[in-house]
Amino acid sequence: MRHDVEILDDGKAIALTVSGGQVRRFHAIWLRDNAWDETTRAPGNGQRLITLRDIPVETRVSAAHCTSGQLFLTFAPEDRVIAYDIGWLADHAYDRTGRRAPGWIAPQIETWDASLGARIPQADFSEVVHSRTALAAWLSGIRRYGFGKLTGGAVESGCLFKVASLFGYVRETNYGRHFEVRTEVNPTNLAYTGLGLQAHTDNPYRDPVPTLQILYCLENSAEGGENIVVDGFCAARRLQAEDPRGFALLTRYCANFEYAGSEGVYLHARRPMIELAPDGELVNIRFNNRSTAAITDVPYEDMAEYYAAYRRFCDLIDDPAMEVTFKLSPGESFVVDNTRVLHARKGYAGAGSRWLQGCYADKDGLLSTLAAIELQHGKAM
Amino acid sequence: MRHDVEILDDGKAIALTVSGGQVRRFHAIWLRDNAWDETTRAPGNGQRLITLRDIPVETRVSAAHCTSGQLFLTFAPEDRVIAYDIGWLADHAYDRTGRRAPGWIAPQIETWDASLGARIPQADFSEVVHSRTALAAWLSGIRRYGFGKLTGGAVESGCLFKVASLFGYVRETNYGRHFEVRTEVNPTNLAYTGLGLQAHTDNPYRDPVPTLQILYCLENSAEGGENIVVDGFCAARRLQAEDPRGFALLTRYCANFEYAGSEGVYLHARRPMIELAPDGELVNIRFNNRSTAAITDVPYEDMAEYYAAYRRFCDLIDDPAMEVTFKLSPGESFVVDNTRVLHARKGYAGAGSRWLQGCYADKDGLLSTLAAIELQHGKAM
Repeated sequence: MRHDVEILDDGKAIALTVSGGQVRRFHAIWLRDNAWDETTRAPGNGQRLITLRDIPVETRVSAAHCTSGQLFLTFAPEDRVIAYDIGWLADHAYDRTGRRAPGWIAPQIETWDASLGARIPQADFSEVVHSRTALAAWLSGIRRYGFGKLTGGAVESGCLFKVASLFGYVRETNYGRHFEVRTEVNPTNLAYTGLGLQAHTDNPYRDPVPTLQILYCLENSAEGGENIVVDGFCAARRLQAEDPRGFALLTRYCANFEYAGSEGVYLHARRPMIELAPDGELVNIRFNNRSTAAITDVPYEDMAEYYAAYRRFCDLIDDPAMEVTFKLSPGESFVVDNTRVLHARKGYAGAGSRWLQGCYADKDGLLSTLAAIELQHGKAM
Repeated sequence: MRHDVEILDDGKAIALTVSGGQVRRFHAIWLRDNAWDETTRAPGNGQRLITLRDIPVETRVSAAHCTSGQLFLTFAPEDRVIAYDIGWLADHAYDRTGRRAPGWIAPQIETWDASLGARIPQADFSEVVHSRTALAAWLSGIRRYGFGKLTGGAVESGCLFKVASLFGYVRETNYGRHFEVRTEVNPTNLAYTGLGLQAHTDNPYRDPVPTLQILYCLENSAEGGENIVVDGFCAARRLQAEDPRGFALLTRYCANFEYAGSEGVYLHARRPMIELAPDGELVNIRFNNRSTAAITDVPYEDMAEYYAAYRRFCDLIDDPAMEVTFKLSPGESFVVDNTRVLHARKGYAGAGSRWLQGCYADKDGLLSTLAAIELQHGKAM
């Protein structure tokens, strides 16, 4: 197809006709800063070689033309011609109308409730070890739904690290490189008891929170002890639909979270229960009844409404219609996105035993591994 | 002194006279949720044993009196008496007037420029290993200024891990548990060349970013290669003072950051260059010319002004009046708060050698270690 380009505003911007006939404007400074020629970007690692100060403040486009899918721009006063791929420009156009509403989520994410049921993202350990495609499918499920189950692992202490190394790196904390989740006599954390635990995200008192958790089952013959997961993004959006002001209060004010259960440890974080990016993207849920400290940053005038919204958010999170329940067998594990999906445990007791090992990891590694496979195999996979 | 308490609004709130005669109101639901009796909080680890759903929605205070520094409240319909320390309530009061202006910083933080000069936080390795007080003083400097130097360490590969273990845990990434900073032939990252590097924060393409970095010197006889640090919070506040709208643009819109310099790695993050908490606290600076990707979330109408603010922010960061410079000798290292303080490197070349080892860690561990020592020794230290 034919592409047209027009110079606007004395060369401070251009208007480019992209595929479909849409016109997208770009500023000269943005174009110059985002050049991909080898004096701007290092050919091997793609890093930018120049700083914004290397680009003259009066930069403008003095000439422009399109040929076979490429746009050629001459920049003054540098007097340099730089070529751009028009498809890349169309993909990175910022000349759009319409603002997104608060609470929007990325297109790769899908919220869910109990009806997700048996369709949970699941894979077999030996499969994801041997096939990059199977690994990408499983990781893509975790990116979409915020959790994924892995079956067929060995029943051996430390195997959870093999799960982490499929996609990333363990985040060591004061709980160790990993921690044992089984009944203890003098527990430093209620997780190490047989008590049921309300759905929660882990370690909201840590900043940054560990963004992934792996729980790996070694024994599970006790009665009870099922795992439950709840989509915190779904709960937040249900709250927003019912009570936009209550949702706004939980995003606007910071809560406090604290943990000082063992010697030499005094963790504190001040962050909202529902965190939005500055443009309203829903990015983080922090929810944990055990470690929520006194909330002191909500003004008196808003506190009663804040607590009403907090209570409603609790109710939504505890609603069985939101829960997906499963019981792990020895050798099975699950990975949970700790910025989004809450996990709970039913109480357990009786003659049998329950022993899980847990560790933390981070989403950057998981998303990077997935994106690199997708890039290699083409985005369509 | 005498404390008075008055029941307000049918018991939905109380008004308490605290030290100094100030009156602070508290809601019944907040008070009940923040009780410290042993059925509400686990005596050993301090974790909350109940959820908000265990507290009746119609909770109110039916009786109240003060005796010797304690407030006794009777809650209906539970019909329970709970005691509160009035000092604790005064410290956690939320009934305040006055909102903080955007860009506020925590009281434990002090911004600085080149005039910090020779007063930089510094300690000797053997001192902080043997004295908790010396360790706390050094960590407190890092909390206040966002960086700190450590002298007198061994000149041995891997010693940077000894620095990390003084206060926390290494964050492993695709660069390894640690990385070698010295000239390489086919560098996957420009940091592994002799080029000068503009002041930057590390890994803004990672979410969460590593919140601390440790750089440990093993050889430094090359000409040049000095380290420079710049307070990103100071630069942001200078920008805000000069150009409040430009500052607001850099906080309101997300930038994109990317790194795909080695195989199997494709990291991307979408976050603002200057991040505020929802109540305006300045919490994070992300700035890195090498890894800033095309910025696509600023509307066309604001892009020219956004770039002008970005350029001004660059200029402030590159201003020598903002820089503190030092050259590390073998066995010396520094810790930098990667959410706040930018670091740069002067180019180096010539006959000598320069070899640093680097690793990432997180602030939660550092702040927790410091807070635990302060708690043990009393806040006054």
